[in-house]
Amino acid sequence: MQRRKFIKTAAVGSLAVGAGVIKPVLAANKAEFKWKMVTAWPKNFPGLGTNANLLAQMITEMSGGRLTVKVYGANELVPAFEVFDAVSRGTAQMGHSGAYYWKGKAAAAQFFSSIPFGLNAQEMNAWLYYGGGLELWRELYKPFGLIPAATGNTGVQMGGWFNREIKTMADLKGLKMRMPGLGGEALRRAGGTTVAIPGGELFTALQSGTIDATEWVGPYNDLAFGFYKVTKFYYYPGWHEPGSTLEAMINAKAFNALPKDLQKIVLVACKAANLDMLSEYTARNNQALDTLVNKHKVKLLPLPTEVLKNLRQLSEEVVLELTAKDPMAKKIYTSVNQFRTQVSKWSAVSEQAFFNARSH
Amino acid sequence: MQRRKFIKTAAVGSLAVGAGVIKPVLAANKAEFKWKMVTAWPKNFPGLGTNANLLAQMITEMSGGRLTVKVYGANELVPAFEVFDAVSRGTAQMGHSGAYYWKGKAAAAQFFSSIPFGLNAQEMNAWLYYGGGLELWRELYKPFGLIPAATGNTGVQMGGWFNREIKTMADLKGLKMRMPGLGGEALRRAGGTTVAIPGGELFTALQSGTIDATEWVGPYNDLAFGFYKVTKFYYYPGWHEPGSTLEAMINAKAFNALPKDLQKIVLVACKAANLDMLSEYTARNNQALDTLVNKHKVKLLPLPTEVLKNLRQLSEEVVLELTAKDPMAKKIYTSVNQFRTQVSKWSAVSEQAFFNARSH
Repeated sequence: MQRRKFIKTAAVGSLAVGAGVIKPVLAANKAEFKWKMVTAWPKNFPGLGTNANLLAQMITEMSGGRLTVKVYGANELVPAFEVFDAVSRGTAQMGHSGAYYWKGKAAAAQFFSSIPFGLNAQEMNAWLYYGGGLELWRELYKPFGLIPAATGNTGVQMGGWFNREIKTMADLKGLKMRMPGLGGEALRRAGGTTVAIPGGELFTALQSGTIDATEWVGPYNDLAFGFYKVTKFYYYPGWHEPGSTLEAMINAKAFNALPKDLQKIVLVACKAANLDMLSEYTARNNQALDTLVNKHKVKLLPLPTEVLKNLRQLSEEVVLELTAKDPMAKKIYTSVNQFRTQVSKWSAVSEQAFFNARSH
Repeated sequence: MQRRKFIKTAAVGSLAVGAGVIKPVLAANKAEFKWKMVTAWPKNFPGLGTNANLLAQMITEMSGGRLTVKVYGANELVPAFEVFDAVSRGTAQMGHSGAYYWKGKAAAAQFFSSIPFGLNAQEMNAWLYYGGGLELWRELYKPFGLIPAATGNTGVQMGGWFNREIKTMADLKGLKMRMPGLGGEALRRAGGTTVAIPGGELFTALQSGTIDATEWVGPYNDLAFGFYKVTKFYYYPGWHEPGSTLEAMINAKAFNALPKDLQKIVLVACKAANLDMLSEYTARNNQALDTLVNKHKVKLLPLPTEVLKNLRQLSEEVVLELTAKDPMAKKIYTSVNQFRTQVSKWSAVSEQAFFNARSH
């Protein structure tokens, strides 16, 4: 409730200010703060790019146009993988991306996207807002002059598209797959090869045989990319990304220059956007899955239990090696892992038990 | 981004307004709009009352004090069950409650709290924001001059506290239980008796034997009420309330009198508060469950599959009878039920499959 108490005399112009209560008066479209938001997504990309648009719109509207935010798709201002640096140095005041893209800056950033066999969306938000997660994320980004916030979640992703059936661990040997992050490292330990390919080139890579398999997000996004045209085996669940958080990052200097009300608007907008994206994916994934299975005759298959057990063990090895090398990664993983142990017990008697009761 | 374009001349006082750009200037703590929020909860009640506080605080802070919201606990301004009428007639501009309390006003209101064997929190939000649910809720409340918004969710609740083991449907016969709403009606059809008792009196009612069983919310709230002192059988899952939404209701005239930016602030704050409550319960329920099981030696038990199947069938009968009598209830249930059919398939291959993979 603290307000700027000064009057910007240059802007007030010819006003003679009296002693009376002065009510807010604004000329339309005269922003005090004009921000740029760079994103790691193609402009308007469903779910991800549209969430960036929604976030910018909420901030602009709630501030009555005092803080306008203009969204830039990947490559419009900077390439996707330069979002972090661009916001850090102040080229843009905000960024919209996924934290695991920045593992080269800080290895522990990956833990704020998703951890293989880790937390689902509901649990991830519980850890961030009520389990100390957000404080740790802020600590991790602080040296870069950045303030992070969760601004979306895809929910449990799909296991991916494969040009062959996966029956045992042997089927992963020699598999060339697009799979980033900690999950990709686990796949390499299973004998696979991982390849970094931007989303827009995945279809061609699958079609030409450059890769044998790819994961992306889930039915809503995967249908749009047309993967079903070149491969029919669609596996679940997304063990490697069970509740991927999308991030908004804010340049700390730009944030600190805002009055308190606009600061609050930015942070609350991120939280509302966080729920919005999860709701959108949850509502739209099944419609897309219906189309994939019933219209395009995709084979929807569960990854075998034995394969999942092995991937889980390999994932734990990957994480333990990472945390052994990096004290901040160890600190963050200790927090999220303790939280997982706790919350898994609660989820077992609540969400999981309910799903089972409903499907009896 | 539309702004009030007029200048409140009375407030501007002795200002001589020139042609220059006028930047916003505000005297601290001079609210343009002072709202009251009446609630159905004791003041500061954990999870529910604290969510009302958070919502009011976010609105007040984001508006820079232009719209202040003061929270009243149950009975401070009006009793819990008069929140709806108080906001409808404008005694207060906002209310914070649960929609199933208003089944006497509009039977279909219950569907916006939770439906037995219906949607969990994530699915409920997907239906509300991306499945047409919120539009139907607005249609239902419009004749009362109210605008509803989801402002919280408890997640899957617990099945309740019982003074005996529940092994078969026969154990529900003659059972006197506090269980409101559609679930309570299903229990009556199973031969039980349901009693309406305010939360604060439940402990004594259990202790004295006035009731044999009660459900409330989940471990976080149930531990605070001390039910473990008088009964040790704690059942899961909460089949009757798998993802209870809490509501903010807004007096439509008061809302329409706000400038666009403050309107947006109110609605976005509700959405952020919605995610916040679910995160709080998810983080805190397990700590409380740990205490109940390990310190207070509560017996945590699953309701038998056969009992759940029977309760599911009885619940469907209850809902079908309700919708047969009430066209608006039929319209809303048709929407939510179609959504459930769809989203259940998606949840089965995403959240449910992941929980299973994690617990192998």
